[in-house]
Amino acid sequence: MQVIKYPERKAWEEICKRPVLDISSLEISVNNVLDEIRENGAKALKHYTSQFDKVSIDNPEVSSLEIEEAIALIPRDLKDAMLQAKQNIEKFHARQLEQTEIIETMPGVRCWRKSLPIEKVGLYIPGGTAPLFSTLLMLGIPAMLAGCKEVIVCSPPNNEEKLHPAILYAASLTGITRVFKAGGVQAIGAMAFGTTAIPKVYKIFGPGNQYVTCAKQLVQKYGVAIDMPAGPSEVAVFADATANPVFVAADLLSQAEHGADSQVLLVCSSEQLIEKVIQELSRQIKDLTRGAFASKALENSKIVLVKDEQQAIELLNEYAAEHLILSCKDAEQLSEKVVNAGSVFLGHYSPESVGDYASGTNHTLPTNGYARTYSGVSVDSFVKKVTFQQLTKEGLKNIGPTVEILAAAEGLDAHKNSVSLRLREIMANG
Amino acid sequence: MQVIKYPERKAWEEICKRPVLDISSLEISVNNVLDEIRENGAKALKHYTSQFDKVSIDNPEVSSLEIEEAIALIPRDLKDAMLQAKQNIEKFHARQLEQTEIIETMPGVRCWRKSLPIEKVGLYIPGGTAPLFSTLLMLGIPAMLAGCKEVIVCSPPNNEEKLHPAILYAASLTGITRVFKAGGVQAIGAMAFGTTAIPKVYKIFGPGNQYVTCAKQLVQKYGVAIDMPAGPSEVAVFADATANPVFVAADLLSQAEHGADSQVLLVCSSEQLIEKVIQELSRQIKDLTRGAFASKALENSKIVLVKDEQQAIELLNEYAAEHLILSCKDAEQLSEKVVNAGSVFLGHYSPESVGDYASGTNHTLPTNGYARTYSGVSVDSFVKKVTFQQLTKEGLKNIGPTVEILAAAEGLDAHKNSVSLRLREIMANG
Repeated sequence: MQVIKYPERKAWEEICKRPVLDISSLEISVNNVLDEIRENGAKALKHYTSQFDKVSIDNPEVSSLEIEEAIALIPRDLKDAMLQAKQNIEKFHARQLEQTEIIETMPGVRCWRKSLPIEKVGLYIPGGTAPLFSTLLMLGIPAMLAGCKEVIVCSPPNNEEKLHPAILYAASLTGITRVFKAGGVQAIGAMAFGTTAIPKVYKIFGPGNQYVTCAKQLVQKYGVAIDMPAGPSEVAVFADATANPVFVAADLLSQAEHGADSQVLLVCSSEQLIEKVIQELSRQIKDLTRGAFASKALENSKIVLVKDEQQAIELLNEYAAEHLILSCKDAEQLSEKVVNAGSVFLGHYSPESVGDYASGTNHTLPTNGYARTYSGVSVDSFVKKVTFQQLTKEGLKNIGPTVEILAAAEGLDAHKNSVSLRLREIMANG
Repeated sequence: MQVIKYPERKAWEEICKRPVLDISSLEISVNNVLDEIRENGAKALKHYTSQFDKVSIDNPEVSSLEIEEAIALIPRDLKDAMLQAKQNIEKFHARQLEQTEIIETMPGVRCWRKSLPIEKVGLYIPGGTAPLFSTLLMLGIPAMLAGCKEVIVCSPPNNEEKLHPAILYAASLTGITRVFKAGGVQAIGAMAFGTTAIPKVYKIFGPGNQYVTCAKQLVQKYGVAIDMPAGPSEVAVFADATANPVFVAADLLSQAEHGADSQVLLVCSSEQLIEKVIQELSRQIKDLTRGAFASKALENSKIVLVKDEQQAIELLNEYAAEHLILSCKDAEQLSEKVVNAGSVFLGHYSPESVGDYASGTNHTLPTNGYARTYSGVSVDSFVKKVTFQQLTKEGLKNIGPTVEILAAAEGLDAHKNSVSLRLREIMANG
């Protein structure tokens, strides 16, 4: 890791920079696959599944028998752990459901806002090196809480034409019944356009490689919504002299092991601690299965020594990390100063991985500085909030003259008329 | 208007289609302007303002003197009306502020979610045929409620180098102090990239012509967020035999007068009413200042006769209108069946224009079918919701083993380690 000591403020911008993910070079090939899916539907899907996943699948939908078989394969302790995670995630997310409250802004003018589920949503769960059943819990639970009518899952099949049993178990835990063996750009295309095999959805969620990310961006032009713009996962840790270098190193590595492009930033107010963390990193990395990824990620990562906590939080607010760990004294007090972050972990006993899996908060979070403007996934992501209003005659009499004046001032006669004609009728008929 | 009687279900897709707004032909020219602003900042801004708005402006920021002068120009009744609108909008939107609530998902595992304002936001208010001060109220009020630190407004100057006094008065009413005379693509570019004259913001709000819409879409690649994808404004009205054809015609016209591309859809369960509405339309349109726009919009609009209310609501849910007026008996009951809409107006005395101006709900709403997935602007649009968590040692002991099992099952050793190393320390030191 590169150590930067007491950088000047003008160097912060450089410190906060993420690697630019340039997907423009992929656009043509991704667009080609999407166009094929749009035009030839299930046939094209089968073709690309055979080309990229090396299996020939006629009906990609996972049968209920396959799900039952998968459930039988999951060891008891993993089932219990997934159930515990589910309960916590559900408990946290259930409080995000908004109650409708009627607000009478003037006598007879009743307005309210109601959360309505997005009818059809698709969850993409990547295959690859790790079966990300936790992501399925993080997306499926709020989708079901929101009341989405159709929730489907796509995930790429392995070379035995199967999905990992833990993925299928997670689906069944959340109550999702429609799971499809489809991955990559072709899965995103199938969910965006609909095929005879996989139904069309209105919003697509979930992480993926750069091809999937590119496909999600491109299908937006066809009116399909996506959860959020994506980039490599990140953690920023603030550690003061009270921090335990063993824990700090472990937290940095738990981010670094995701992949070579993972972003890790340590901001530290103690020079001594930095030395110890670096030692710990080399010690802990040795035993990691994914040590090669972690090592690569750390090469591109930075440790910044700052003069105090105040400067640390200013830099961290500028960075706007996906995950922010405050390994310091009075973390709660410092957390009040957080302006930009996806999810914040307070104190020495709140590692990111508890939030990644089981504490209850969501792990689908804004990366790449998007935490300045975007929220992580929540029940909000699966609903739209629709406003309603109902005026009585009395209400229209109260507010009508105001609307007439405003509409006239904007030069919109017909807007004014729609009120005036009603007021006239009310006057005439009482 | 085209009248379609009892269409079969397979014809619905065609009925629900919006005109495709193809901005790809604009992309090159819009991109050129954006690139210029990005590279040459204030100088390029001045150049384009002179080219497109025909005025030469060195410092585009409106002075406090100009604001004072503008305030003096607004007639008393308009001031009062704007103040009334402001109070109602504020009352409705204030309830959208979310209180932070700590949820203990397991003993010692405390999680919460906190709304944090987006620090810097830019509001674009178009110039052109009508001074849209109402849009400034609709965007400025939730921005200020959310607590955004920097709220700026851009609006194109008229040929006297001025903004309309009502725009400046609306800004001062909402408490916004920084208003800039800049419009079009160059204003969007200035807010996206920042110039010496106009500061950079993180999220851009507001309507505009197709160039502005295109610019908003394009700046997203640079990490700037926007309120929502835009299309021409729309209203769908459901009217049954109890509806007053005078009111229905007035509501259709109040949408149609926005512009030639406005979308108007009347769904009706009474054939007699359709005749009367058509008569009323020709009668009312004669006296409208903007009758030419309205007439053009109506040419492309449809009236659909359906067999009953149930079929009407199914069609309307498929259409997913920006504004939906339920001019019928038991509108409240029918409103329970709304699945997709931006904002809904219930009964015979709730014209869209009350919501456009003053009832309290927001008028920045999803068009073009986006109501299936997107919400209108609210306080939510100006905040991001950040999750926090803090575990005690006891909490980590409770949840740790679950996280260890889940991380191991996903093959993520370092995730597991970050818990295990802490648990070991807790065991050792008690």
